[in-house]
Amino acid sequence: MSEFKVNFERLVKDLEELGKIGQDQRGGVSRPSFSLPDMEARKWLKERIEEAGLISRLDGAGNIFGRLPGRSQQVVMAGSHLDTVINGGHYDGSIGVLAALECLRRIKEENLSLNKTLEVTSFTDEEGNLVGDFLGSRAFTGQLQAERLKKARTQFGHPLEEILQKAGLSVDSVLQASEERPEVVAYLELHIEQGPLLESEEVPIGLVSAIAGKRYYHGTFIGRAGQAGTTPLELRQDAFLTLADFAVKATQLVARKYYGNTITIGRVVLKPGSFSIIPGEADFTLDLRSQDSQSLKAMEAEVLSLASEVASTRGLSFYRQLVDSTEPVDIPESMLERLKNLCQKLGFNYYVLPSGAGHDAQILSSICPVGMIFIPSIDGLSHTPEEAINFKDLEKAANLLLQALLDLASE
Amino acid sequence: MSEFKVNFERLVKDLEELGKIGQDQRGGVSRPSFSLPDMEARKWLKERIEEAGLISRLDGAGNIFGRLPGRSQQVVMAGSHLDTVINGGHYDGSIGVLAALECLRRIKEENLSLNKTLEVTSFTDEEGNLVGDFLGSRAFTGQLQAERLKKARTQFGHPLEEILQKAGLSVDSVLQASEERPEVVAYLELHIEQGPLLESEEVPIGLVSAIAGKRYYHGTFIGRAGQAGTTPLELRQDAFLTLADFAVKATQLVARKYYGNTITIGRVVLKPGSFSIIPGEADFTLDLRSQDSQSLKAMEAEVLSLASEVASTRGLSFYRQLVDSTEPVDIPESMLERLKNLCQKLGFNYYVLPSGAGHDAQILSSICPVGMIFIPSIDGLSHTPEEAINFKDLEKAANLLLQALLDLASE
Repeated sequence: MSEFKVNFERLVKDLEELGKIGQDQRGGVSRPSFSLPDMEARKWLKERIEEAGLISRLDGAGNIFGRLPGRSQQVVMAGSHLDTVINGGHYDGSIGVLAALECLRRIKEENLSLNKTLEVTSFTDEEGNLVGDFLGSRAFTGQLQAERLKKARTQFGHPLEEILQKAGLSVDSVLQASEERPEVVAYLELHIEQGPLLESEEVPIGLVSAIAGKRYYHGTFIGRAGQAGTTPLELRQDAFLTLADFAVKATQLVARKYYGNTITIGRVVLKPGSFSIIPGEADFTLDLRSQDSQSLKAMEAEVLSLASEVASTRGLSFYRQLVDSTEPVDIPESMLERLKNLCQKLGFNYYVLPSGAGHDAQILSSICPVGMIFIPSIDGLSHTPEEAINFKDLEKAANLLLQALLDLASE
Repeated sequence: MSEFKVNFERLVKDLEELGKIGQDQRGGVSRPSFSLPDMEARKWLKERIEEAGLISRLDGAGNIFGRLPGRSQQVVMAGSHLDTVINGGHYDGSIGVLAALECLRRIKEENLSLNKTLEVTSFTDEEGNLVGDFLGSRAFTGQLQAERLKKARTQFGHPLEEILQKAGLSVDSVLQASEERPEVVAYLELHIEQGPLLESEEVPIGLVSAIAGKRYYHGTFIGRAGQAGTTPLELRQDAFLTLADFAVKATQLVARKYYGNTITIGRVVLKPGSFSIIPGEADFTLDLRSQDSQSLKAMEAEVLSLASEVASTRGLSFYRQLVDSTEPVDIPESMLERLKNLCQKLGFNYYVLPSGAGHDAQILSSICPVGMIFIPSIDGLSHTPEEAINFKDLEKAANLLLQALLDLASE
């Protein structure tokens, strides 16, 4: 089997071409879904799919598919996403789509006759630049709520419907995307690790054992604004100090009682937000993650109750709103074993690790067995122009993906 | 002496007229120095001064004076400021200027012949909307640094020179303002308390014993940004968590060891400031205040060293920049006694209290004895459209100011 390999030069050339689409002033890539650069990238991918002799298809959510028919209508799928965060890197998402494209292209070139149909896919808005993560894969798997989506606005206040219509889509077409779905029997995704573990272990390949679930909250502490100079410390209801107290205590709680889980406060806005005025309001984002469903739920309950407790101790109020949530996913043992065996056959060192970041594979796991192949991120960097990979690792991972697709499609 | 009183109806009418200048959409007053509303308020005040038969004068810093000559050139001065914060209230500053104006107007009407010259004044930009607090009184007392002022830009990035020139002034004229200064032998300022104490003590008059000094810093913790999902808690250099830890510990330190002093973090900006990215940088404002010079210096040193310590314990760096500072001022015993005696003669209850907020009087204390008369702020509110006073308190305070001016000018 080691004779049959991807055309890695062609894959690298694809990566270079795609990387030019949406290059921004700060040396990164800005290609949020349905932006002009994203529309250009979509057109480029469709051309590559057609050029390879694959059957191109777009669903109601703007998910792009390239199909290589097999004897059965059952589909073994591989892909990721072409969209990026603002000022992101070249590899997050892109390598998953392009490696899958290259695999199907090679299989097509060899005229191999397979039992299962193969599809490469690029899911819409994995990064959640529009209205939350995984719009495309959630639409594909039928996990969207019609009412919520109809009222949805982007962070810049545009109705989702307006943005979709510019791309020839609509909220209704997004909601219908799952109805056009073929029978998917497996989904594979190749991705950068977005963390430091594989690099520190000096292995080229990571096999994902579980994908963390998360809870995203918007939280607010409401106290009472006042003049810094004239309100003694003991009479204050300082919303920032309450947030600070909560942040320290909640992080200690998670580190002690929920080891391996994470809590992150990434954004804080104080109001009125002036040098010499005690903050009357502190708005913040709260990101909670765990690889274990029970642990995630318990941590969530305890952290939220701690916030209420810290607020009431200091005479303030705490409000929160759940913005997004995903459940942790265990990769099926059979899929992990299959990938381990292939690594051994190919002579690749690998390391089994959980994924802290969410991926389309997590969403796809609701309809079929999924597998994920990671390659090291240099310095663990992600969502930044400095994001980098070793091409040797990508070549190994792409060949592993090729063998895994052949394996799954031959059954 | 109780026969001779201010014309309180006229003072209230002035307050009402002035309050209409710079009224904003949110029910407050927005009259930052040299804005169009401020220019209109300046014109209005000049007209009132001239209408009253006082000699109007403007110095190089845009400070406005109305003079009632006495037998000596020595000046007893009273005033405050007409500028406001954005979306501020009707009384902060304004009542000090208008009460002083009314006092001089009454004295002029009575044709009283006094030893000392009297002046009402309105100082430029007490609120520091341009380049830090007390621009006018600092210019008047010669406390500005030429080099710093020449490079100064407002918070919106405009060079100070540009703004001054629109008002017919310049950085040079501001720097020369102190050279035109008459010999000032006393300065009195009537002001709202901006805190809850007088209201809770149910007294109409506060006599200020000391004015707090302050240190304003811009602080920054620099850590390392990273993906929330893929960086374990123990490997993070989270700039927000470090700020939170510092804020809690520093407030505990001040409350325990520097009782009566205050520490306030009013504004926080996290970078990159995204839901699922660990903050690599936390920028914040730090406001430290004390009525005692030694205590202020000791607290400042200890709080800054705590910030460095918390940063280094967590593997981060701490940077800070001093933005502004004033020294605490004790009101001279003789001035306080004079005001207490007058209150007793007038039959007014009073309460002696320190001022946590800064005032032009604090700056004037470098050139002459100063005194401050407070009236209660309803609910202690300040720098908000909801700022309010009882008019009965203002009437008493204005009459106290009148008697104090007569007393000082008769010597």
